[in-house]
Amino acid sequence: MRGQGGYRLYETLRQSSLTDVRQAIRQGSYRSHTAGLGQGYLQANLAIMPEAHALDFMRYCQRNPKPCPLTGVSDTGNPKLFTMGRDIDIRSDVPAYNIYRDGRLAGSVTDIGDIWQDDFVVFALGCSFTFERALEQAGLPLWHIQNNTTVPMFRSNIETVPAGPFRGKMVVSMRAIPEGRVAEAAAISRAYPLAHGAPVHWGDPAGIGIADVSKPDWGDAAPVPEGHVPMFWACGVTPQVAIEAARLPICITHKPGHMLITDIAEDAEVPVLAPEPEAAF
Amino acid sequence: MRGQGGYRLYETLRQSSLTDVRQAIRQGSYRSHTAGLGQGYLQANLAIMPEAHALDFMRYCQRNPKPCPLTGVSDTGNPKLFTMGRDIDIRSDVPAYNIYRDGRLAGSVTDIGDIWQDDFVVFALGCSFTFERALEQAGLPLWHIQNNTTVPMFRSNIETVPAGPFRGKMVVSMRAIPEGRVAEAAAISRAYPLAHGAPVHWGDPAGIGIADVSKPDWGDAAPVPEGHVPMFWACGVTPQVAIEAARLPICITHKPGHMLITDIAEDAEVPVLAPEPEAAF
Repeated sequence: MRGQGGYRLYETLRQSSLTDVRQAIRQGSYRSHTAGLGQGYLQANLAIMPEAHALDFMRYCQRNPKPCPLTGVSDTGNPKLFTMGRDIDIRSDVPAYNIYRDGRLAGSVTDIGDIWQDDFVVFALGCSFTFERALEQAGLPLWHIQNNTTVPMFRSNIETVPAGPFRGKMVVSMRAIPEGRVAEAAAISRAYPLAHGAPVHWGDPAGIGIADVSKPDWGDAAPVPEGHVPMFWACGVTPQVAIEAARLPICITHKPGHMLITDIAEDAEVPVLAPEPEAAF
Repeated sequence: MRGQGGYRLYETLRQSSLTDVRQAIRQGSYRSHTAGLGQGYLQANLAIMPEAHALDFMRYCQRNPKPCPLTGVSDTGNPKLFTMGRDIDIRSDVPAYNIYRDGRLAGSVTDIGDIWQDDFVVFALGCSFTFERALEQAGLPLWHIQNNTTVPMFRSNIETVPAGPFRGKMVVSMRAIPEGRVAEAAAISRAYPLAHGAPVHWGDPAGIGIADVSKPDWGDAAPVPEGHVPMFWACGVTPQVAIEAARLPICITHKPGHMLITDIAEDAEVPVLAPEPEAAF
């Protein structure tokens, strides 16, 4: 999707309805990142695993709500994530998937219909797009968005609370905020508990075990200009690291940046559609 | 605990530290309701069930976060609810428990050590005490608290989103709020997503299937004075009704009003203690 055609399609989809965006993804004609698409709707990180591990993973999310804000869970074996969309089919409605076998990345695909299992449980987790929009709307431009790069992410020394085989350090993302607006940025993001909530740390990166803030472990480096403070938020890569540590025989996630776009409004109080018996059950 | 001795103990414990309150409950010397005790700390509803039903129940809570705001889940078979307290032993630290067998109340006890099972999973759910305190602090006195009665609760016609055997109508609690302050009361409670959040309805009770607002299905009737609007919040009795519908062979809940008092500050962003390896694991 880096070619001319892909970029044109992206620009078209930015102006398109949620239905059109989902169709383009479902049919496989759009396979790239989802930033800026389906504006106004909640996007979600994805983890799919056999039911045997689902209770432990759900406990891991409940115990670590800032890096792992759970927004939806499927019935076992049901690819319809009916609490988050009227017609979401999780086997096709994400632009790209990463497949992990025994904790190692085994490949990326754009459809998982052929490897779907009857014992799979789907988890959707909130992502940072939501609070980033709120910060920018409050007049706090974010460098990585302005410069079209990926937010810098770091392995911190903050332990997550383990559950079963899921454990590890918290991954955090960094955004530099003007000194005088740190408290405001914290308050704005705290209002989005399903999008990582308030930052876990700000100021000296060494305070959470980050040796060099210019050398991220994931994503692209971003400057901390004079008069700015590095602020660190819990990051959705944390569950990915915990999943690798757990070495499940199989686990499927979204490819980073290639999220599930849901039918849930970004400012909804809860990420659940009201029941609609004929569609859902 | 209705006798003179019980009342004196309650008055003493109202002034006592969290540690002293928990010891009195653990030793069985205090067996009554927990309203007003351990002030400043989060109190929680309780549901304990075999692991075989835990994933479905957890999905039910995730899909119905307003009536069932999940605040803690134990490891299977571990009676220490270590994410919500440094030394909580769930077998003894609740003043009174209800035991359900095949969906029917089979008795109430003050300790469940003798019926604890190695496959039990403990669920703690947020309760209305938190947002009620916030309303009263904003100068909105609540009739049932002022008059020392139980809040009126009603079976509404709002369907919850089912998960496995758990399903049923949402139970709601009613508080009458002065007309001019309805929006304010909604906004205040919305800030407490782990305590039922914003109301699900206000105004005409018939709008959610309540025929007579003076005849609650649970709790005590409360007036809706001239110039007041009945406001309805999702209620923690909802999961109890869903549990009865599921007819589990065994399930244990707190006795209504007799809650778990946790170590979590009432205004904490997330209901999880930071890991303390030696104590927790």
